[in-house]
Amino acid sequence: MQITKPTLILDKKRCMQNIESMQAKAEKKNLIFRPHFKTHQSLAVGRWFKKLGIDKITVSSVDMAKYFASDGWRNITIAFPVNLLEIDAINALAKSIKLNITLLSLETVRELKSKLSFPAGFFIKIDAGYHRTGIDIENVELIDQILEEAQEAPLLNFKGFLVHNGHTYHTKSKEEILNIHNNSAKAIQSLRKRYTDYENLLISFGDTPSCSLSNSFKGIDEIRPGNFVFYDIMQQDLGACDYKQIAVALACPIVAAHPERNELVIYGGAVHLSKDYITVGKKKVFGKVVRIDHNKRWGAPIEGLWVEKLSQEHGIIKGEAEAIQSFKPGDLLGILPVHSCLTADAMRGYFTPENQFIDHLSGNNLE
Amino acid sequence: MQITKPTLILDKKRCMQNIESMQAKAEKKNLIFRPHFKTHQSLAVGRWFKKLGIDKITVSSVDMAKYFASDGWRNITIAFPVNLLEIDAINALAKSIKLNITLLSLETVRELKSKLSFPAGFFIKIDAGYHRTGIDIENVELIDQILEEAQEAPLLNFKGFLVHNGHTYHTKSKEEILNIHNNSAKAIQSLRKRYTDYENLLISFGDTPSCSLSNSFKGIDEIRPGNFVFYDIMQQDLGACDYKQIAVALACPIVAAHPERNELVIYGGAVHLSKDYITVGKKKVFGKVVRIDHNKRWGAPIEGLWVEKLSQEHGIIKGEAEAIQSFKPGDLLGILPVHSCLTADAMRGYFTPENQFIDHLSGNNLE
Repeated sequence: MQITKPTLILDKKRCMQNIESMQAKAEKKNLIFRPHFKTHQSLAVGRWFKKLGIDKITVSSVDMAKYFASDGWRNITIAFPVNLLEIDAINALAKSIKLNITLLSLETVRELKSKLSFPAGFFIKIDAGYHRTGIDIENVELIDQILEEAQEAPLLNFKGFLVHNGHTYHTKSKEEILNIHNNSAKAIQSLRKRYTDYENLLISFGDTPSCSLSNSFKGIDEIRPGNFVFYDIMQQDLGACDYKQIAVALACPIVAAHPERNELVIYGGAVHLSKDYITVGKKKVFGKVVRIDHNKRWGAPIEGLWVEKLSQEHGIIKGEAEAIQSFKPGDLLGILPVHSCLTADAMRGYFTPENQFIDHLSGNNLE
Repeated sequence: MQITKPTLILDKKRCMQNIESMQAKAEKKNLIFRPHFKTHQSLAVGRWFKKLGIDKITVSSVDMAKYFASDGWRNITIAFPVNLLEIDAINALAKSIKLNITLLSLETVRELKSKLSFPAGFFIKIDAGYHRTGIDIENVELIDQILEEAQEAPLLNFKGFLVHNGHTYHTKSKEEILNIHNNSAKAIQSLRKRYTDYENLLISFGDTPSCSLSNSFKGIDEIRPGNFVFYDIMQQDLGACDYKQIAVALACPIVAAHPERNELVIYGGAVHLSKDYITVGKKKVFGKVVRIDHNKRWGAPIEGLWVEKLSQEHGIIKGEAEAIQSFKPGDLLGILPVHSCLTADAMRGYFTPENQFIDHLSGNNLE
């Protein structure tokens, strides 16, 4: 296949190494490995996990759970607060697979008492400092109330506590990431001690930066990283991966050159990469630039080049004169995305260097 | 249809009013109206234009041109620098419709001399101050060279100059927008005067803020606004539209409430809305909140509420206690998007309040 327009290339070898390395860490630390599939959203990539013996997964929507259940996944945690409006789809899933749902409000548990028709496990989402969603770790009154209410719902089985330390993404050093991870792992032991009436409760932790960087998982039973499957510039910037681990690159045709201001214009914009950025100094950077070789593989980012701006379909590459002038309209270049989850979602599919097409959940309105 | 997950609602009445109002302005000012279809990317919405007698359109990719040509559009300008890698698709289009392409580099013209197989009109993209892409308006040497080169390409027909004043999006007042518009309309007359050897050259202008706000189009022959079809919070913030003109809203289920910090969590995130934002004071705002009534229609944004943060699938609504507490998990609310082009692209389709499904180009890898 000749690349003629923005195309997301997935390097299977790098991806497999990322998966195997995280699986090895989970095994070494005796952790349940329940990878989050929201990053790749692909049945084909899912099968790569399955071949390695992984049989438990995490997703972030009912649609994703249905998608993966359709390909034989039988043990799925939806790590997203229950959306009561999707109760019919939740019941259909609970009927056919081992489903875990995520709860954090009393009202939702009350509704589920009458609306849930098949057994489901549930995790209580705990906010250990990220403040996006979850019950404050100190708010044991609310946790007590939810558990009391849930006891009147015989189909609801309490599995444990689920934490996502998304604030590791807003750190400036590895130490900060490890501090967040260690402190919240320690703090959540208070809940384990309080709820000893429930046997074999699981403490499930999530984010890729901690799971990549930490070697201490004391008091944690399960990990649910997702982004590590591809990694990206944001993870590299955090120190959670090396450039060599980034497994996706967006190949983009160059459509114009403006050497007078050291810029290239590419066909490749916000609808392909998403508008996430990292901040370097005071500058927003929307991606790094690599050369795509004739085998559709890439090496290290080109020093002194970056994605400066994204419109709907255009991207502006800026940087040093010599690097800029080594490209001309009609050439291809590659962009390592800032946030691979959003780029993968925007592109809705991948090509391998061997020209294999790899699916992605088609998403949103398209059922 | 019952809404159970993030769903983009398109109010046809508002949309038609936006189209009719822009068409009326174009007629009054004797302008060719060549609306940009990159915002809606929909055959169905395209037919609404066609019913009003509009037969010339603008798109920003070869894929979009193919999509609309497949539905009978016969006069299309691709307002995006020619991507030489798509020459086969460009030739197929040039064979079957009246196609205009956009040029700004000598190398591309040289390549087209041998590679173009059917007649095509071309515009030269002029940079009148936006500095995204285009030939600097002062760089007449390069324009001369391109035109000389193009004269040796009998299939290339020079149509005129194309300007997109995207910097109107970075203004702080209507006066600034009008100044940009008026100054660049005036400046480009120097090119009209220089190239009188070419008869009936067209000066084609683009952006929605200018086309919405200006009443002076002296020296301009054609307008190509796109976003006006739906408008959005960014346009409203610029003063280019009123809230009542915004024709799309993302309906989102509420999945959690955090009254202790005046927040709601919605199912609706970056993969639905995109991560574009406006800045209000020092705060990033990713959307405004409306109530969706039982007829799936909405009124003015709720005072004191805004979209504070977007993750992949989550959104955080923040604001005043009373407004926050008027919602609970299981309710729906509506988000007026910051950038409707990107939200429409992410959602890949629309529903009307009457439950009609409206298509959107499926986009990217999916051919």
